[in-house]
Amino acid sequence: MYPVLELLAVVAGATYGMLLARQHHMDFVGVFTLAFVVAFGGGTLRDLFLDRHPLFWIQQDHYSIIVFVLALVTSALPRLPTSMERWLNIPDAIGLGLFSVVGALAAIDSGTSMFIAVLLGVVTGTFGGVMGDIFCNRVPSLFGTSPLFATCSFVGCWLLFFLKAWNVPADYATYSAVLFIVCFRLAAVKWGWTLPSVGAAESDRSEP
Amino acid sequence: MYPVLELLAVVAGATYGMLLARQHHMDFVGVFTLAFVVAFGGGTLRDLFLDRHPLFWIQQDHYSIIVFVLALVTSALPRLPTSMERWLNIPDAIGLGLFSVVGALAAIDSGTSMFIAVLLGVVTGTFGGVMGDIFCNRVPSLFGTSPLFATCSFVGCWLLFFLKAWNVPADYATYSAVLFIVCFRLAAVKWGWTLPSVGAAESDRSEP
Amino acid sequence: MYPVLELLAVVAGATYGMLLARQHHMDFVGVFTLAFVVAFGGGTLRDLFLDRHPLFWIQQDHYSIIVFVLALVTSALPRLPTSMERWLNIPDAIGLGLFSVVGALAAIDSGTSMFIAVLLGVVTGTFGGVMGDIFCNRVPSLFGTSPLFATCSFVGCWLLFFLKAWNVPADYATYSAVLFIVCFRLAAVKWGWTLPSVGAAESDRSEP
Repeated sequence: MYPVLELLAVVAGATYGMLLARQHHMDFVGVFTLAFVVAFGGGTLRDLFLDRHPLFWIQQDHYSIIVFVLALVTSALPRLPTSMERWLNIPDAIGLGLFSVVGALAAIDSGTSMFIAVLLGVVTGTFGGVMGDIFCNRVPSLFGTSPLFATCSFVGCWLLFFLKAWNVPADYATYSAVLFIVCFRLAAVKWGWTLPSVGAAESDRSEP
Repeated sequence: MYPVLELLAVVAGATYGMLLARQHHMDFVGVFTLAFVVAFGGGTLRDLFLDRHPLFWIQQDHYSIIVFVLALVTSALPRLPTSMERWLNIPDAIGLGLFSVVGALAAIDSGTSMFIAVLLGVVTGTFGGVMGDIFCNRVPSLFGTSPLFATCSFVGCWLLFFLKAWNVPADYATYSAVLFIVCFRLAAVKWGWTLPSVGAAESDRSEP
Repeated sequence: MYPVLELLAVVAGATYGMLLARQHHMDFVGVFTLAFVVAFGGGTLRDLFLDRHPLFWIQQDHYSIIVFVLALVTSALPRLPTSMERWLNIPDAIGLGLFSVVGALAAIDSGTSMFIAVLLGVVTGTFGGVMGDIFCNRVPSLFGTSPLFATCSFVGCWLLFFLKAWNVPADYATYSAVLFIVCFRLAAVKWGWTLPSVGAAESDRSEP
């Protein structure tokens, strides 16, 4: 079960990166780099912050090869199906749930406090996309008022630690938290749940 | 004395980040991330470069909690007092001074040369703001011709090492260097001291 | 031979960074930071990913001093010769070749697979420029359709490992791969070889 979900999560991240690169008319180098960065960026940051070596994509090098082949294949297509972004929501939510929970567990195993572990779970789940946006020279959509993404991860990581504190068996706690994040995210997309923009009253202020 | 100054420096960095996020109409996720990045980004880079683990914000997790609560509270405010940015100059200068000196001392303790220690002091003091600007998709103000900021840190870190070379007691050297940077920075803001823009004669050149 | 080439490569990277900073009318802080980032950024990423410490620019601190003096000297010049960017192509290609090959060898020494070593070779050779572009708030030119750059590095790193697999003596394999990358890159610039833009058929799609 787990390897299938992880593969799905990596493919979802890579696909999101490739769509970003296509929107900016990049060449194959851009497509592969963005696929790689979105899929592995969050986990790389977590591993660097926690001093965990070798990095997971250096140790499990088949993921890089899969992303490379995927980038090669989609680069050859002149046009991707327009319905793709809609279908992407489900693997994307699975990626968010899985990476967040795996990240939070890795942090707590490294001896961080629970609050830090939750933050690193959110970083693992979301910062690939943030880096992809920075590479495309735009303000990360994570920080704007798009449907809840980091929030789902944050709440789900706390749920994970509450379940563990209540002595729920490890596997059950893990998959419950992943499932919770996936459902929360899909609901946020479907019903357009967002956090309010902060400082709207200052909107007349000119940019420095 | 030291813990109070450090807390003030963290709060100043976080506040600068939150103001940036408000200017870009981000939601709470953006406000907290920018507060965190500006407050801890420089020190994180330094620790990664020097292979110092655990990272200071992982070890001292109360700082993350303080920044989180601060972001929650200010996000609830519809408008911040407009005089805030002016008052921010003083804690901001304290943050620059304290983080630079602490960073330079951490580097020299790790066995770097003096020149590298000074550079890492400047990185510790200034790169939180640089990362905040990158997250907001703008050219870092550190590199433009705003009042001296990195320069104050650079000169102050050299002063620190000169004082130590003259056998000035450690505490006295540290606080003298911090005080020097704070005063230098405040003077630069007050009298508008800047470095000249380089390559002004090429200004007619079109952007590639 | 090697130290001369390495110095040339560092100077080429630094010069590229300084030209970037001049185009954006930065002050000396920006000129030095961009020179540093373009010259050392790729190698720093590689060392962090591979957990190699101390970082090469911390250990060999004369390179930082050379870049600092170079930045000081060129900042004093009101205008750089306009023919400079054309002449820069040769040291730039040497930098690409040398850094890529050194990076790939460092990775394989650290025990990565060959595919990962090639990727890290490309990162070492090219990501300084990517970071420089991000600091200047533009989409990295590496991902656009400028003449082949990452591709030369990628093919050259594979050539290196094929030569080593055929038991070609280490030095001979190394310099052949460097020479190949240099020639490939210069040919790509001269004849305008590029990779096609991906997803051109979607160009009517509005930016989100």
